[in-house]
Amino acid sequence: MKKTYLMTPGPTPVPPKALLAMAEPIIHHRTPEFMEIFKEVCADLKYIFQTQSDVIVFTSSGTGAMEAAVANLLSPGDKAICVQGGKFGERWTELCNAYGVNAIVIDVEWGKAVDPKIIEQELKKDSGIQAVFTTLCETSTGVLTDIKAIANITKNHNAALVVDAISGLGAEEIKTDEWGIDCVVSGSQKGLMIPPGLAFVSLSKKAWDKVEKSKCPKYYFSFKKSKKALDSADTPFTPAISLVIALRETLRMMKTEGLDVILARHKKLALSTREAMKAMGLQLFAPTAPSNGVTAVNVPAGVDGEKLVKHMRDKYGVGIAGGQAELKGKVFRIAHMGYITETDIVTTIAVLGMALAEMGYKGPVEPA
Amino acid sequence: MKKTYLMTPGPTPVPPKALLAMAEPIIHHRTPEFMEIFKEVCADLKYIFQTQSDVIVFTSSGTGAMEAAVANLLSPGDKAICVQGGKFGERWTELCNAYGVNAIVIDVEWGKAVDPKIIEQELKKDSGIQAVFTTLCETSTGVLTDIKAIANITKNHNAALVVDAISGLGAEEIKTDEWGIDCVVSGSQKGLMIPPGLAFVSLSKKAWDKVEKSKCPKYYFSFKKSKKALDSADTPFTPAISLVIALRETLRMMKTEGLDVILARHKKLALSTREAMKAMGLQLFAPTAPSNGVTAVNVPAGVDGEKLVKHMRDKYGVGIAGGQAELKGKVFRIAHMGYITETDIVTTIAVLGMALAEMGYKGPVEPA
Repeated sequence: MKKTYLMTPGPTPVPPKALLAMAEPIIHHRTPEFMEIFKEVCADLKYIFQTQSDVIVFTSSGTGAMEAAVANLLSPGDKAICVQGGKFGERWTELCNAYGVNAIVIDVEWGKAVDPKIIEQELKKDSGIQAVFTTLCETSTGVLTDIKAIANITKNHNAALVVDAISGLGAEEIKTDEWGIDCVVSGSQKGLMIPPGLAFVSLSKKAWDKVEKSKCPKYYFSFKKSKKALDSADTPFTPAISLVIALRETLRMMKTEGLDVILARHKKLALSTREAMKAMGLQLFAPTAPSNGVTAVNVPAGVDGEKLVKHMRDKYGVGIAGGQAELKGKVFRIAHMGYITETDIVTTIAVLGMALAEMGYKGPVEPA
Repeated sequence: MKKTYLMTPGPTPVPPKALLAMAEPIIHHRTPEFMEIFKEVCADLKYIFQTQSDVIVFTSSGTGAMEAAVANLLSPGDKAICVQGGKFGERWTELCNAYGVNAIVIDVEWGKAVDPKIIEQELKKDSGIQAVFTTLCETSTGVLTDIKAIANITKNHNAALVVDAISGLGAEEIKTDEWGIDCVVSGSQKGLMIPPGLAFVSLSKKAWDKVEKSKCPKYYFSFKKSKKALDSADTPFTPAISLVIALRETLRMMKTEGLDVILARHKKLALSTREAMKAMGLQLFAPTAPSNGVTAVNVPAGVDGEKLVKHMRDKYGVGIAGGQAELKGKVFRIAHMGYITETDIVTTIAVLGMALAEMGYKGPVEPA
């Protein structure tokens, strides 16, 4: 018998209601029935994004929407700041490079958050900078960025603030309108609790002004095409109908629970996870700027990090994530994002303790 | 009580097995379990595409894969032939325009198929032409293009033959390797019988050589990134896991039925539909080059085409499609593609007859 407990930072577990909604017979997207669903989803997304602006929906992974932000806001030769302190921050730089945008890279030590003052210094040096690309929660390191402080800087400059909130939306506070964020990008398979395949973008007035001037090529990911279709509750191209219908279910759940309660729940689960790690004598990878969505933990000396993840999955059915890129084998990551309860965290910690012991870890030094 | 009978050319009905597969708890994509599924899907796609080359999988609508073909095969300033005889043929031209590719447009009267000789003439005029963009089955008109004849021409030229087989794959004969097609693009929600959200691309050696030279920007839709990941049964970005799992089910069904049997079934359903239309005194929109995936029928005089579609849907639950773009209100379209049986066609024809009578259509003139 096999049973799985998914504790990875995307995909995250999908509530049964949303799974079952996808098992209903498929409906056509250009029907009053689907248009009603799509309208409800778009309205609820505004609530989660904390914005009055439209939220555009793409059928793609979150990376597609990140590419859309670069291709729709900028032109070749433009300058943009890319804050990179992990695998997903680096993606902004790669995207800028792909589109001929001059990336001014702010390299941040993995495990640390960027100092907003460094961004301010760069913006003061060059008023021609068109965008600042940041990451709310860097999934590869578990670091949370102080987006509020950065928004407080960018609002006095020409540059648009773009936030990758793929990991983070629905887990971390992000007040799009109140803080003045110009573009928030997200995905479906994290805090929004449905399978991967949908991506989302919100845009401020300042962002739309840049869209008007953008000269990068785009078609499928065109904000203008999406906005035009959205005005009649439509998408320019056939959407992932099943995923939109599943999303209606999870957004209804989120509205019922309430965003404040959801965020408080994530905070509590994250704090509990961090305290449990310390109690087990383990070290957090990002102790100074931990996120509420995912916790990265250093693999203790003498334990093989890759084998630990495999062992927990194969023996106990608990799926946590290993390290990515330069952190491969060096950290493991426990997600507490989306459809995750206290009981799931307790389960994961208990299983982690057993697995570590089985792999020779002796735990914290016993008090004398 | 409401029950729906979906007879639209995308989405098409999804078999219960595939729907239920999506209702299983979500699994992580970087696990041996998912990699096995993905490997099986990629192998089965080669069978359906009738190719020995890799088939790349994108999470997007079919249009995303069309954009990928333009962005990965060409460079700004390149010349390409775009055959347009409907809404989807026009999309190739729009995509070329978006990427700064010089589109040599071959305009075909809607409802007619392109004469391959015209393509040959253009190719002979200019050996610098890099690609010929065509449509296997033009969903907006129901026209089938003679891809075999076109491939027979392009194989003697520098240009790569790119076929939009979004509507058509699994319904029409398309022998990718045998005919020498360089790039076949398709989508998930037509002949492959799963919901929208996945797109596919096969590439010949000639196409890959062009990929090496391409200078258009791309990232999410990069063929090279996809190919590199595919070599280890992976995708460069989080795929629409649920849809891949659903696709395993429908591809297994297709392998069991056998491609020849599937194509013969589509041919029979299409022929039956066309004969029924004629018997009802209706005129086919594309009598000279009808496809086996979808039949477009002229709305008879005195009947409101938009209302007919709505009436059939609202009163009888039978969803057919209206006309698109310049054909809006002028044609209706019945799909016989994917998970569709003889019984479904009989149902649709019976309901169409009733609906037309209710809207004042008198039918063919009675014999004296």
